[in-house]
Amino acid sequence: MPKNAEIIACGSELLTPQRTDTNSLAITDQLNLLGVEVIQKVVVGDDRERLADAIRGALKRAEIVVICGGLGPTEDDVTREAAAAALNRRLVLSLEQESILIARFRQINRPMAKNNLRQAYLIEGAEAMPNPHGSAPGQFVSTERGALALLPGPPRELKPMLENELVPRLRPVLPPQEICVRTFRITGIGESDLDALIAPVYGKYTNPVTTVLSAPGDLFVHLRARADTRAQAEALLREVGNPIAELLGDRVYSTDANESLEMVVARMLRQKRATVASAESCTGGLLAARLTETPGSSHTFLGGFVTYSEVQKREVLGIPGDLLAKHSAVSEPVAAAMAEAVRKRAGSTYALSTTGYAGPDGGTHFDPVGTVYIGVATPDGTRVTRVRYTPDRWRVRTLAAQSALDLLRREMLKSSR
Amino acid sequence: MPKNAEIIACGSELLTPQRTDTNSLAITDQLNLLGVEVIQKVVVGDDRERLADAIRGALKRAEIVVICGGLGPTEDDVTREAAAAALNRRLVLSLEQESILIARFRQINRPMAKNNLRQAYLIEGAEAMPNPHGSAPGQFVSTERGALALLPGPPRELKPMLENELVPRLRPVLPPQEICVRTFRITGIGESDLDALIAPVYGKYTNPVTTVLSAPGDLFVHLRARADTRAQAEALLREVGNPIAELLGDRVYSTDANESLEMVVARMLRQKRATVASAESCTGGLLAARLTETPGSSHTFLGGFVTYSEVQKREVLGIPGDLLAKHSAVSEPVAAAMAEAVRKRAGSTYALSTTGYAGPDGGTHFDPVGTVYIGVATPDGTRVTRVRYTPDRWRVRTLAAQSALDLLRREMLKSSR
Repeated sequence: MPKNAEIIACGSELLTPQRTDTNSLAITDQLNLLGVEVIQKVVVGDDRERLADAIRGALKRAEIVVICGGLGPTEDDVTREAAAAALNRRLVLSLEQESILIARFRQINRPMAKNNLRQAYLIEGAEAMPNPHGSAPGQFVSTERGALALLPGPPRELKPMLENELVPRLRPVLPPQEICVRTFRITGIGESDLDALIAPVYGKYTNPVTTVLSAPGDLFVHLRARADTRAQAEALLREVGNPIAELLGDRVYSTDANESLEMVVARMLRQKRATVASAESCTGGLLAARLTETPGSSHTFLGGFVTYSEVQKREVLGIPGDLLAKHSAVSEPVAAAMAEAVRKRAGSTYALSTTGYAGPDGGTHFDPVGTVYIGVATPDGTRVTRVRYTPDRWRVRTLAAQSALDLLRREMLKSSR
Repeated sequence: MPKNAEIIACGSELLTPQRTDTNSLAITDQLNLLGVEVIQKVVVGDDRERLADAIRGALKRAEIVVICGGLGPTEDDVTREAAAAALNRRLVLSLEQESILIARFRQINRPMAKNNLRQAYLIEGAEAMPNPHGSAPGQFVSTERGALALLPGPPRELKPMLENELVPRLRPVLPPQEICVRTFRITGIGESDLDALIAPVYGKYTNPVTTVLSAPGDLFVHLRARADTRAQAEALLREVGNPIAELLGDRVYSTDANESLEMVVARMLRQKRATVASAESCTGGLLAARLTETPGSSHTFLGGFVTYSEVQKREVLGIPGDLLAKHSAVSEPVAAAMAEAVRKRAGSTYALSTTGYAGPDGGTHFDPVGTVYIGVATPDGTRVTRVRYTPDRWRVRTLAAQSALDLLRREMLKSSR
């Protein structure tokens, strides 16, 4: 019988228009991998009564309750008190935690304020979870139906404690089961077209659970299967994942959830011992920034030019003035000439170029705002692709850089065959 | 007597590790401007019983309850039913909404599925809020203590409805009061140093409410005052805001919440009829991308070079080989030479350069990973600033681009005096 969880994020700053709770995403990820579904999330301010009420509600609804934030040393930090009240337990001073705190302050050579002692109090029956990155220990409490955990709010304290301390303590509380996941990262297709393509496959299954997520020009399909054995979970993933992989073909740029398109391009360039250079107009440096985002990119990226004006295109890249005059700067011949010029100039294997109308001004009847020509110069010749996006400056620039990376990836795929 | 609000976001995708609720930020912003504080936020999946329970709890805790999402046409969309159940009211078919739906489908020349009729049902006594961007109307219900509102989930449908339909309906429900806000956007100081500087001023006041937010290299101080009259609210803002402005001095780059540092730099360049160009090593195009992010930047940005290798620095920028050999590429003289070379080459008023160790590899004993030299060439000479950041590639690149923009801003401030 699978168990459910509820996550409570505590902190008045999370109730402002500027800040959203993101800790719950990391917690959800780890809980899902344990086969636990999150059924509700709550954000409460630093208010002891409201927090205690929220915890009481969560304990009624879910077997696992995870609370993050509010473990600091000040009066504002009310999570310990609120959780103890909700569980009808006392808070007791832990001499062990007290000496850990004292040692910590001695080590950084700072006096310990009296307030800090608040962090040495544990809920009766709770196990302390050590925090190597801060002064607040976490707490783990076994309950009748499952467990309640307190985690610190700062992500760099929360994440290691979640993975190293909480997950190992939750595993024995949960029914044994195996979870397997499979991920596709996809570009070159819109979200609704993607869903129309693959929903007929995954729609028939509730296990694996399929999630489709989208960012501009970047889609993400995630399958998560659970079963009694690893072999069964993997068989379920194959049953749904293999037909999806076939339908998507080379639109899948990675099956690693953490590998971005620029990482794939950098990896392929390294494998081929190939190099790239860029000549950008409308993307204004975004493409070079992505080509240099990956560590070690100095081995694969030779150089970039941001030639925003016609003068720069002529003087820096040597694009002939009559070509610019005849076709205009935003045109197929100019995109090709830019890519070829920078490839020759940098002496790189490949070169990419962009020229287009990012808006809000500019554009012509035939090439309205949102139109971009993307050039890819290769050892076998130069190809230019014309793309047209929704006329929003941020989207046009972001999507054009993404398309340029993907066109380079596809060129490299071709030449590997 | 100020009123409180609770926001409920409905949608199973908001309980996955990949997606967080952001609608509540826009809703909180508008509620705060009405003088309403948000005391709790809840995320629930597409589950009618759980959602109805959450709404019942919210109606007990808060005078204003705003629910977003779950107004679509499918069986998954349960918000109408759940809200009606929580209020103990019926759902009734609105003939007016039915005819709006029919007209909408006729206009886009598509048959209306039977399911779509679900969107024409209103909670008994509710007022429909028109949705020009989608098929789901919002709903506004006056309750004994205040109001309950249903808004659609997609942000481009939610935001206009929030501002144009919900806010005007909430205003008469709320006690009359005036809200005034003041914002400082700041760079060149860390979050804890900033707080140590200004907390002695704002810490004495609960009205205005002061919020300090931070992104890497970018801080945000927000004051919000409420009073019976506009003059009183503005006086409160002056009482706290003026001493803060004095303490921060020219670290404040804008007092407009929506004006980013690149927008300020572009505005100052335009005002001075000046231009800029860039030569980047470790920032790899990020700086050019920010200099070209603002519409119309083709008037102020003349061109950019991403010279990642020593060869490129020599061949493209003409940095003398012996300068590189003597000082290494990451050095003050090379940063100065890069800025001067690109200024001359592009014929711009100003030029910026970056050269440093973004990591993870590289660095020397004197210039470890995280060290960046930033050059600013101006009509009055060239200045190089050495900065050192936490050795994290993403942070080093982001912070160096931010610092370069800020150094240019400060140069322009100086020459305006």
